[in-house]
Amino acid sequence: MIGFWFSFAAAVLTTASFVPQALLVLRTGKTEGISLTMYAMFTVGVACWLVYGAILGSWPMIVANLITLALASLILSLKIRDTIRDHQNAR
Amino acid sequence: MIGFWFSFAAAVLTTASFVPQALLVLRTGKTEGISLTMYAMFTVGVACWLVYGAILGSWPMIVANLITLALASLILSLKIRDTIRDHQNAR
Repeated sequence: MIGFWFSFAAAVLTTASFVPQALLVLRTGKTEGISLTMYAMFTVGVACWLVYGAILGSWPMIVANLITLALASLILSLKIRDTIRDHQNAR
Repeated sequence: MIGFWFSFAAAVLTTASFVPQALLVLRTGKTEGISLTMYAMFTVGVACWLVYGAILGSWPMIVANLITLALASLILSLKIRDTIRDHQNAR
């Protein structure tokens, strides 16, 4: 039973943790300290967890990774936008 | 079998993704765009995954989450350091 609660807390915390990061980026428009490589790798990784969850038919994995995928993709797209803008300004 | 490869790719990508973020923060010393709340929640969440992996006796979960915990804790500690410094400068 205690295992369930650790996995539940882990899933909620690691999923929900991307909400404050997404809100911070949306609010400040700043992605300077954020690694493009990290979010590219992380987003693909979460997509793989999503596929794995679908293969297992595990609804908790599917729901948690769908939310994380949406948030990570949002942060990744804002970071890509800023990286393109910085490159254009550097010309 | 395909499920194994998706879970393996997912674990490697989501774990390894924190390496470029940690290197970026160490190299630039900038944590401005990084959310302190995110890394606090995420670090606790990964610690919960680590405990869960230990309960299951799952070595892949233990190793992956130990690495992620080390990297996330490093980024969190650098973010806390900068947050304290910014507060002191604001006085």
